[in-house]
Amino acid sequence: MIELRQELADLHRLLVTAGLVVWTAGNVSARVPGADLLLIKPSGVPYEELTAESMVLCDLEGKPVQDGLKPSSDVFAHAYVYRQRPDVSGVVHTHSTYATAWAARGEAIPCVLTAMADEFGGEIPVGPFALIGGDDIGRGIVATLEGHRSPAVLMRSHGVFTIGGTPREAVKAAVMCEDVARTVHIARQLGTPEEIAPADVDRLYDRYQNVYGQGVR
Amino acid sequence: MIELRQELADLHRLLVTAGLVVWTAGNVSARVPGADLLLIKPSGVPYEELTAESMVLCDLEGKPVQDGLKPSSDVFAHAYVYRQRPDVSGVVHTHSTYATAWAARGEAIPCVLTAMADEFGGEIPVGPFALIGGDDIGRGIVATLEGHRSPAVLMRSHGVFTIGGTPREAVKAAVMCEDVARTVHIARQLGTPEEIAPADVDRLYDRYQNVYGQGVR
Amino acid sequence: MIELRQELADLHRLLVTAGLVVWTAGNVSARVPGADLLLIKPSGVPYEELTAESMVLCDLEGKPVQDGLKPSSDVFAHAYVYRQRPDVSGVVHTHSTYATAWAARGEAIPCVLTAMADEFGGEIPVGPFALIGGDDIGRGIVATLEGHRSPAVLMRSHGVFTIGGTPREAVKAAVMCEDVARTVHIARQLGTPEEIAPADVDRLYDRYQNVYGQGVR
Amino acid sequence: MIELRQELADLHRLLVTAGLVVWTAGNVSARVPGADLLLIKPSGVPYEELTAESMVLCDLEGKPVQDGLKPSSDVFAHAYVYRQRPDVSGVVHTHSTYATAWAARGEAIPCVLTAMADEFGGEIPVGPFALIGGDDIGRGIVATLEGHRSPAVLMRSHGVFTIGGTPREAVKAAVMCEDVARTVHIARQLGTPEEIAPADVDRLYDRYQNVYGQGVR
Repeated sequence: MIELRQELADLHRLLVTAGLVVWTAGNVSARVPGADLLLIKPSGVPYEELTAESMVLCDLEGKPVQDGLKPSSDVFAHAYVYRQRPDVSGVVHTHSTYATAWAARGEAIPCVLTAMADEFGGEIPVGPFALIGGDDIGRGIVATLEGHRSPAVLMRSHGVFTIGGTPREAVKAAVMCEDVARTVHIARQLGTPEEIAPADVDRLYDRYQNVYGQGVR
Repeated sequence: MIELRQELADLHRLLVTAGLVVWTAGNVSARVPGADLLLIKPSGVPYEELTAESMVLCDLEGKPVQDGLKPSSDVFAHAYVYRQRPDVSGVVHTHSTYATAWAARGEAIPCVLTAMADEFGGEIPVGPFALIGGDDIGRGIVATLEGHRSPAVLMRSHGVFTIGGTPREAVKAAVMCEDVARTVHIARQLGTPEEIAPADVDRLYDRYQNVYGQGVR
Repeated sequence: MIELRQELADLHRLLVTAGLVVWTAGNVSARVPGADLLLIKPSGVPYEELTAESMVLCDLEGKPVQDGLKPSSDVFAHAYVYRQRPDVSGVVHTHSTYATAWAARGEAIPCVLTAMADEFGGEIPVGPFALIGGDDIGRGIVATLEGHRSPAVLMRSHGVFTIGGTPREAVKAAVMCEDVARTVHIARQLGTPEEIAPADVDRLYDRYQNVYGQGVR
Repeated sequence: MIELRQELADLHRLLVTAGLVVWTAGNVSARVPGADLLLIKPSGVPYEELTAESMVLCDLEGKPVQDGLKPSSDVFAHAYVYRQRPDVSGVVHTHSTYATAWAARGEAIPCVLTAMADEFGGEIPVGPFALIGGDDIGRGIVATLEGHRSPAVLMRSHGVFTIGGTPREAVKAAVMCEDVARTVHIARQLGTPEEIAPADVDRLYDRYQNVYGQGVR
């Protein structure tokens, strides 16, 4: 557990380095292997004060199971995703600038870059407007991602949620999502970038998911 | 007093880290608890040279009460706010890029993001054009903020002022103001983001002000 | 060889510092002097873990010639360039934001800045859309650069490739390409910058290539 | 002389920190007090290798007066300015992104911000297109600045030159020029910012030049 706590603290620092978060906004969570539990960022604590110990242990309803700091107020969305998606062990939420700008317009990011085909296997979709505090956001995330290969979803008027088989993969999806959101925005400012043909998207996605990288490390 | 001086020097460094200021522009002030006094950045001193000792002690008319460095030339605006608003103990002024761009057009930032509803409880309003050196800027700040929940005001053709119950809260408002100014600008470049319904803004604002964070720390 | 390995690892870090890459995207390769071999970044390894030892030695068909890490999946494009262009000893590939935005629209960057005339001797051209994994990308790079003085080519819907007489020169071209891609994009947002007359482009290019700098260092 | 050399090396590092330069582009020079000499950056040397010793001593025709590194190829423009303007003791040249974008369109930056009135006393003007290597660029700088209070001039299709009573003041002007170039660009993307009335520009300029700061330090 201590290793997972430390990894989670380190991944939060990665959000800062990548420029995805300001002040105390944004959070990463991890499913605890072999238990109906998750770890998540405490609410409203500055990134530079986060430690392995400050990560908050909760059940899969989002309720803390130990005394101490309160969990992120986004915990209910994370918990819902873990309940519905046993394949997911990491969830990230940010208000990263360009992705959130697409979300504010309620517009999906079209697949116009090979890097998007690689990582997202198509467009990055838009989920519904939903209020914080119950299952509404989680429901919107899960329902929207069902019809897509994308591990990222733009929640309308709000920000981005990403999922992964590990917390690190979810962070990678958050970083890549902001990167393509920015590049496609800038491309669109002076014209209309062409979409990649669906068959080519399939080939790129398949290759990247199966050939890229060093295999299990 | 030395702790407050040190905190103020540290908060100035936060403005630099957050990318809100260049060269010697921008300043933070703090009300001295239990006295009709304030501390503020000295005029024209580079951020990397600021120390606890270099913060300038002034009365609430903006007049320095000790020999030494001259206060920021914005001191009269800060002093006016402290005189009129006993609930305010921190004031920040910056020319942060995106917020100042909205100010240059004299346009309020509409509430199209849940993060804006959380922190600002609605739009970020625009105050009048006013010249430096007397009470005009302070008057513009106080009058404009009266009709809003926002702790930030865009002063026309000039920049941003933010207020807070503590200096740190005022800095937070300055950071969040630039963040949403940037995101809403970028959203607007390619379309018109939808405003959040007033009842939802109220719910989000209420929750964020009362439920978010760890309570008094 | 160990010096070349170390230089290559250091040049990868330069891509990060210059803001041209995120996560594990992007790569630099170097021709091994006096041998039909190249060194290249391993596939999917984070930049902060790269060392001289982790650079992968391959033949000029892109096949690794030692046990260990797998090479970047872009190795075939690099290898093709080295086979066809004996004058090239360094190749860089990135998805840097502004250059990739021009690539997404399939639009060449017009020569409207003296800095572009200096380094690129004219426009930065666009190459074809090509899938990864064989010689298609390499063929597109070599064919497109044939008619231009530019050491950079924008590969449609994909990103940038740059070449150089040394790996460092190729990295320089990648840095300058993103810089002018950004500046010309921003100039174009509010009007149409004038192109530099071809005769002046020739004069600037000639002077920069022959007079600038300290000669061989 | 060694103090001036060290100050010049440090000011070059400030250009990097402020994000005004990439690779080896950009340079700062200083008039040597009481002599017809200047110090300037060597040509094509990376910023991280610059030392007090590597600064190149030249006469006011731009000719090096010691063996060693070649001066920046922009030395003739700097030298011309020192010959014509005895009040100037520092000159800076950059291709900073937003200022250069205005220069590429050949458009002056209108005075729509109080910070511009403070530092530039009006618009930032555009100078002619001129080729490097003789007096043409210097002549364009001096002629354009004659009719303006601005210490910065946008050279068409090229970049920015700034002047100052000290090298540090010229660097300040370069930093402020990029800052207002960026803010006004962004303001203009979504509308037309109002210009500040000339009488108010005069009041702001006068106050900033005479009241701001700590006096001679």
